[in-house]
Amino acid sequence: MISTLRWEKNKLKLIDQTELPLRFVYLDCADVSSIWKAIYSLKIRGAPAIGVAAGFGVYLGIKDSPAKTHPSFKKDLGRVLSYLATARPTAVNLFWVLERMRNLVEENKDKSVSKLKRLILAEAKEIMAEERKSSQKIAFWGNKLIRDGDRILTYCNTGRLATVGYGTALGAIHYAKEKGKRMEVFVCETRPFLQGARLTAWELKQNKIPFTLICDNMAGVVISQGKVNKIFVGSDRTVANGDTANKIGTYNLAVLAHYHKIPFYVFCPLSSFDFKLKTGEEIPIEERPSEELLYIMGRRIAPSGVKAYYPGFDITPGRLITAIVTEKGIFKPPYIRTLRKLKNG
Amino acid sequence: MISTLRWEKNKLKLIDQTELPLRFVYLDCADVSSIWKAIYSLKIRGAPAIGVAAGFGVYLGIKDSPAKTHPSFKKDLGRVLSYLATARPTAVNLFWVLERMRNLVEENKDKSVSKLKRLILAEAKEIMAEERKSSQKIAFWGNKLIRDGDRILTYCNTGRLATVGYGTALGAIHYAKEKGKRMEVFVCETRPFLQGARLTAWELKQNKIPFTLICDNMAGVVISQGKVNKIFVGSDRTVANGDTANKIGTYNLAVLAHYHKIPFYVFCPLSSFDFKLKTGEEIPIEERPSEELLYIMGRRIAPSGVKAYYPGFDITPGRLITAIVTEKGIFKPPYIRTLRKLKNG
Repeated sequence: MISTLRWEKNKLKLIDQTELPLRFVYLDCADVSSIWKAIYSLKIRGAPAIGVAAGFGVYLGIKDSPAKTHPSFKKDLGRVLSYLATARPTAVNLFWVLERMRNLVEENKDKSVSKLKRLILAEAKEIMAEERKSSQKIAFWGNKLIRDGDRILTYCNTGRLATVGYGTALGAIHYAKEKGKRMEVFVCETRPFLQGARLTAWELKQNKIPFTLICDNMAGVVISQGKVNKIFVGSDRTVANGDTANKIGTYNLAVLAHYHKIPFYVFCPLSSFDFKLKTGEEIPIEERPSEELLYIMGRRIAPSGVKAYYPGFDITPGRLITAIVTEKGIFKPPYIRTLRKLKNG
Repeated sequence: MISTLRWEKNKLKLIDQTELPLRFVYLDCADVSSIWKAIYSLKIRGAPAIGVAAGFGVYLGIKDSPAKTHPSFKKDLGRVLSYLATARPTAVNLFWVLERMRNLVEENKDKSVSKLKRLILAEAKEIMAEERKSSQKIAFWGNKLIRDGDRILTYCNTGRLATVGYGTALGAIHYAKEKGKRMEVFVCETRPFLQGARLTAWELKQNKIPFTLICDNMAGVVISQGKVNKIFVGSDRTVANGDTANKIGTYNLAVLAHYHKIPFYVFCPLSSFDFKLKTGEEIPIEERPSEELLYIMGRRIAPSGVKAYYPGFDITPGRLITAIVTEKGIFKPPYIRTLRKLKNG
């Protein structure tokens, strides 16, 4: 099985996802700025994978800190955390990991600086291990939503490339395959970054799961023709009432599922929940450079001087979500009540 | 003003729309097979423009017929009509023009073969003139649906490049601009052929109408943010109950408009109605080669050996359409009753 992220000899090795599927190459990140750039430029993407990369980024950012005292180390750490926090605003995993690192140092005030550095590295590895387990559990629960012969539409990439394990929404599909279930998968290409066409298609092909690639605008027609009977998507941030930020285009699919009365499932590890926010309106939505929409694989697709709008994510209201799958089980509406269990546990 | 199609010195000159917006070039078609290829390969597209091109295609196909008698001329004509009919199956304008030519020859049985050839050329010119007038009238009626300050989302290309005049849905926007109305237009890029990004963006830029280009999957988010207050689309074939075949992706927009309670208008010249069909299910939907989805501007976007599905059109049920704009005015549901007037008139 491929590993999207690997910690080796004080470097984070990650698959450069901007090169897939044409080239399969690992990128070595030996300092925090390479991690920042890899996250910003989507060389590594997917909420869980971003979180894991950020954990190692924190270590790479402070491992050479000359600080001798706790206060001066905390200052250095603060700079690294603030820097990494600017890489991408929407997926909450990034902030969750940075917060964990801040707390870790706070709770170990009495330790030496060199010990703190070792603790940070151990924490980054622990986050990676947790995300792997979390993927497995989500896949386990997600598999319960899959019946033999299902026709599942999936969006963006929520598989191995987005995590450090099976994946989330796509993880459940990988797991169901292992359990011998037959499925037909419809993959939306996911403009503008084409995570579906480039990454999900690549993963499904590797795993020999039959699938059909479509343009995002064909979702309605395949659903209305009965070619799809459920929709599986990931989450970059899910808040207290179930409102979910996910890759731009997810909301269109949720409305189509609602209109056609087919279930719409969101897969969300605990690390992607943000209970500090009450509704989706509070989630900051990343707006990316319009050039990323105006060029495809280096080719310009529109006249010069054209204005384009590229929100990286959209918000799907909880009321359009049939169930939310986490490592603790499957949650159903009313989310404001059912999700509370996760917050408190 | 640009002319998408021009008849000059026994040749049909047409803008090669596969080259836009990077290159603006005219293609000369001097025989029926160049017309067939131009239609099949989308060098000329848009239901009304396809119809006009086919009219000249018929003339180019029979102008050198050696037939001396009416029956043998009819046989030659039959071959040309059958050939052109295979170029594209969904837009009914093609078949409507071919039928007109067949009837013309039938009604002029008593004329000499050379006279018949002249009549066919005159008919092709007449069809072009009619389409130009029809565009003007549709734009006139469509303008009545536009208020100063409107924020209109449009799909594919329904402007000058799709017709021989103002256009249909986009024609109304061009016309409203002339009347001094201010609008903000949202243009869906329209995968996979990118008619929105390549052609509509080019036309709006030429006509200095402010617009924002988005990916098709962003329609939901701009509608939900209130950035769009109405949707204008074209039609390749509209049947007795109002069901409409239009560019793949139109149906997604109709469902989004319905969910958000904003009006969804279809612009349809009389030449695009097909009253022989009772419901949209009877409309033949062109399935195009999956390579056209798997490559963008010559660059492959998915792994090799991947299966893709590319229906060229989808059907929007009449019940999701707020009104249908024709050169005879604006028609509202129930279409099965209101459209009958057009059939009989």
